[in-house]
Amino acid sequence: MTERWPDLAGRQQGSVHVLPVRVYYEDTDAGGVVYHANYLKFCERARSDCLRILGIHQNSLEDMFFVVRRMTCDFLKPARLDDLLEVETRFIEMAGARLELQQRVMLNGNTQFKALVTVALIDGRGRPKRLPDFMAERLKSFPDSQS
Amino acid sequence: MTERWPDLAGRQQGSVHVLPVRVYYEDTDAGGVVYHANYLKFCERARSDCLRILGIHQNSLEDMFFVVRRMTCDFLKPARLDDLLEVETRFIEMAGARLELQQRVMLNGNTQFKALVTVALIDGRGRPKRLPDFMAERLKSFPDSQS
Amino acid sequence: MTERWPDLAGRQQGSVHVLPVRVYYEDTDAGGVVYHANYLKFCERARSDCLRILGIHQNSLEDMFFVVRRMTCDFLKPARLDDLLEVETRFIEMAGARLELQQRVMLNGNTQFKALVTVALIDGRGRPKRLPDFMAERLKSFPDSQS
Amino acid sequence: MTERWPDLAGRQQGSVHVLPVRVYYEDTDAGGVVYHANYLKFCERARSDCLRILGIHQNSLEDMFFVVRRMTCDFLKPARLDDLLEVETRFIEMAGARLELQQRVMLNGNTQFKALVTVALIDGRGRPKRLPDFMAERLKSFPDSQS
Repeated sequence: MTERWPDLAGRQQGSVHVLPVRVYYEDTDAGGVVYHANYLKFCERARSDCLRILGIHQNSLEDMFFVVRRMTCDFLKPARLDDLLEVETRFIEMAGARLELQQRVMLNGNTQFKALVTVALIDGRGRPKRLPDFMAERLKSFPDSQS
Repeated sequence: MTERWPDLAGRQQGSVHVLPVRVYYEDTDAGGVVYHANYLKFCERARSDCLRILGIHQNSLEDMFFVVRRMTCDFLKPARLDDLLEVETRFIEMAGARLELQQRVMLNGNTQFKALVTVALIDGRGRPKRLPDFMAERLKSFPDSQS
Repeated sequence: MTERWPDLAGRQQGSVHVLPVRVYYEDTDAGGVVYHANYLKFCERARSDCLRILGIHQNSLEDMFFVVRRMTCDFLKPARLDDLLEVETRFIEMAGARLELQQRVMLNGNTQFKALVTVALIDGRGRPKRLPDFMAERLKSFPDSQS
Repeated sequence: MTERWPDLAGRQQGSVHVLPVRVYYEDTDAGGVVYHANYLKFCERARSDCLRILGIHQNSLEDMFFVVRRMTCDFLKPARLDDLLEVETRFIEMAGARLELQQRVMLNGNTQFKALVTVALIDGRGRPKRLPDFMAERLKSFPDSQS
């Protein structure tokens, strides 16, 4: 499948993962712009695809789930129907069961939205779960991430 | 809880269940109207609340799920931000594992959207499951439904 | 309409506005819980209804729009299908074109989600617009808000 | 931009347009599968991109909007988190202000969802608007469409 749609999960460029996101009608609201909560969806798509590119598939993790614990979101400029956005994802830090990421939604080189995101790994009962070694190793392959 | 927010699940009025739905920004798109797929969400809320009023709680059904099999949808007139819609749900027929319903989204007495909906009950493996007697009995309490 | 569905826009209780929100299938994800971005939708519904109760109708504001500038979100505990949530909204401060609010999504007395929200009033060109006097007066009618 | 993300709007393959769609958490529900209304979103993305590839950009149409009038939807099999779907779009007929399309959501060669869709072109007042010649010409470039 990777060959058939080569960039579907975006690209890893040095220390940043870039995912293209087209703005469709479903993403906009009656103000004529992207509905604010949908930037969080774009960021979640980017995190999923970034993990996918690292070989971490969320639907095959046994009894482990990534959940968002905290997001500080700045809605800087509006995006509109048909805009071609790029979501940039950078790993900032990992410690224990937690990951810190910075994400930006770009349009033609401008930042429309940015967020600082704390993600945690939990087990099926909702308890924090230390990142397994194989996962930590792969996340460290991002040049800027610090363990 | 029922007392605290008495009409949260709408009202049964003779053979029709009525659920009020306010149009918020999240429901609209850049065309200034309710995004078409969201009428299906409104209808699903109404079906859930109609079952709830009949004492059928989807999260406590053991190994049973209602799934939508077929919908024929007519998008008749647009609805807009802040509109107060009413979703009308009527049971048409039930047979074996299937329910047929008619749903209408009304605005000030006009029909903005209507759908004919076929819902099936399935088990955890996705196989059709005959409606249990207790459920069939309650659904028959709708004056117009036919078994 | 207010009489027909008396609590549709929630209730003002002292310095807090409370909006009931039922969790439907559309709000959940494959993790079995409310999808994180949907808490922002619940909060936006509550802000809209809080303004509505104060007599401020967003669709009749001439050349004025409320937009979210910043949200700091803590996802504390999961909510699930059929849960009856209550969104609490408190005005913290208003100054110039900006409003600060605190919002909490409650379940049986526990806080599942909380956010600090900065909202701005803008004109059709996206420029900040000072809150008109009539609006500032009504917002001040919340006992705890400070001008 | 087309070069940077070459397949973002899918591909035209003979008489069918194919758009890849990845299933993210936002698309699923607590049943563990894609929420039924979201197939309509996938289809709308595909229609938008199919028009885009034909050089018809919805955000630059003057006083013209495409709206969905009717959809007959069959929900055949469930799709799940991380699935890579392909939305196939075929033009069936165009007449006056109307377009008929057939759409299928495929997974590994199986049809999970199919719909017959009637779309209309309207003006800013919601009145039907005959398809302009340039648009009709481009739509006819689909081998199977009939005028």
